[in-house]
Amino acid sequence: MGDSRAIGVFDSGLGGLTVAKRIMEVLPNENIVYFGDTGRVPYGTKSVETVRKYAAEDESFLISKNVKMIVAACGTVSSVASDTGKALPVPFIEVISHSVKDAVRFTKSGKIGVLATPATIKSHAHKNLILKAAPDTQVFETAAPMLVSLAEEGWYTADNEIARLTIQRYLCDMKSSGIDTLILGCTHFPVFEELIREYMPGVALIDMGVSAAEYIKEYLLKTNTQNNEGGKPSYEFFVSDKPVTFEKTVKIFLGENCRDITINLVDVEKNEKSNN
Amino acid sequence: MGDSRAIGVFDSGLGGLTVAKRIMEVLPNENIVYFGDTGRVPYGTKSVETVRKYAAEDESFLISKNVKMIVAACGTVSSVASDTGKALPVPFIEVISHSVKDAVRFTKSGKIGVLATPATIKSHAHKNLILKAAPDTQVFETAAPMLVSLAEEGWYTADNEIARLTIQRYLCDMKSSGIDTLILGCTHFPVFEELIREYMPGVALIDMGVSAAEYIKEYLLKTNTQNNEGGKPSYEFFVSDKPVTFEKTVKIFLGENCRDITINLVDVEKNEKSNN
Repeated sequence: MGDSRAIGVFDSGLGGLTVAKRIMEVLPNENIVYFGDTGRVPYGTKSVETVRKYAAEDESFLISKNVKMIVAACGTVSSVASDTGKALPVPFIEVISHSVKDAVRFTKSGKIGVLATPATIKSHAHKNLILKAAPDTQVFETAAPMLVSLAEEGWYTADNEIARLTIQRYLCDMKSSGIDTLILGCTHFPVFEELIREYMPGVALIDMGVSAAEYIKEYLLKTNTQNNEGGKPSYEFFVSDKPVTFEKTVKIFLGENCRDITINLVDVEKNEKSNN
Repeated sequence: MGDSRAIGVFDSGLGGLTVAKRIMEVLPNENIVYFGDTGRVPYGTKSVETVRKYAAEDESFLISKNVKMIVAACGTVSSVASDTGKALPVPFIEVISHSVKDAVRFTKSGKIGVLATPATIKSHAHKNLILKAAPDTQVFETAAPMLVSLAEEGWYTADNEIARLTIQRYLCDMKSSGIDTLILGCTHFPVFEELIREYMPGVALIDMGVSAAEYIKEYLLKTNTQNNEGGKPSYEFFVSDKPVTFEKTVKIFLGENCRDITINLVDVEKNEKSNN
């Protein structure tokens, strides 16, 4: 038994590589097909209608690659367009609900923070799910658009004063609110883990990639659809555009795993049209 | 005589509004049609092929609005895709060459700095034109992607420590090089004028919007195509998506002029197709 087909992962750009990285760590046997919509990034500043259209096209592309599951490794898609995954012929995993489950399980103070892009915060996707699961929880939300650019510039290490000040500026209200759990609600944000831990010691950081990867592991075992074939897994990556700083950004988000991947350019709009 | 048709202005997003603002100031009688490709912003991180395709679509949209001239108020389009304007039935103005002429005229030390997006810097568009006009000039180039996000977040005033540190980080090498003239090679950057002047007193800042507006004024007079009709000019604005922080961003770049404009949503890809 088992299923050797790849897990499909997509994001508006390269931030979703932090989720792919967690899947590689938690499920080292699984093949992965990643699609990064670098030609249309970012989704976080776009309207809900546009995000829904793009998500449907991205999913359609991954389906054409014969994947066994699709992971929306994108906070924005997960928050405002996860219903686009319902009609798919394979299981669809978004990254919000699993992180929310972990946050609700971890918190003792009943105060949870959510740090995300403006579009995700405006959707209250995490907050609504938290309150559904645990109505007495207090949720503190902050939109942190600058963290996306800081991550892509590579300015996220503990010796970067601009990153430190930006973290402080975005998190100071949350810090005084007394949260004990913070959801990193954008796939770019795990790179700031060290700086956030330093500023908010003792606060549990929920990495959406870890939550999703743990869920996927359980699901594959339960349904007996894990990849049982031996050997090195295949990591195939597609992007809709190759930005000027591409290699640098892949390395930021994927770390050392970046040496094992192959990159292909694809026109996802054309692909979508030819599928219709 | 004269020509009452509007001046068409386009940009990858809303940064080009700083150019529209200068045209409003220098040519208060002219009607303006602005297109901001907010659905596909930013261009500065995309490949040259993609930027050329988008620029052609944007120009095609403005032509459909019966403009008398098209201004590419976008450093990226001006640097890598200005040839898309050559086949147009109306004059095409990009924002690089006029700023370069001003910089070459202003410099006394023969040392000119260029601050722009990674794609514009990689193209060496300003540098190549400077060296063509004045081969003995020394040109110092710096890519400053974070300034785009800082401007859009509204973090550009003199009391913002993060903006101040970022300006210092990007400009410290240029400062020690002894430039006396700095081209703000991205339309977002004029909002940092105060912080840059503070860090580099005595350095002439070249605002591409001012250079372009002065050139347009001369051109309209010379060709007798200025708008001679009296009354309040019409400012018609089109965007390909309405981002979450839209109103805030328009106000940042357009200042008080933002109260006189009307905003319309348009699908520029469909428009392009229907024009073919």
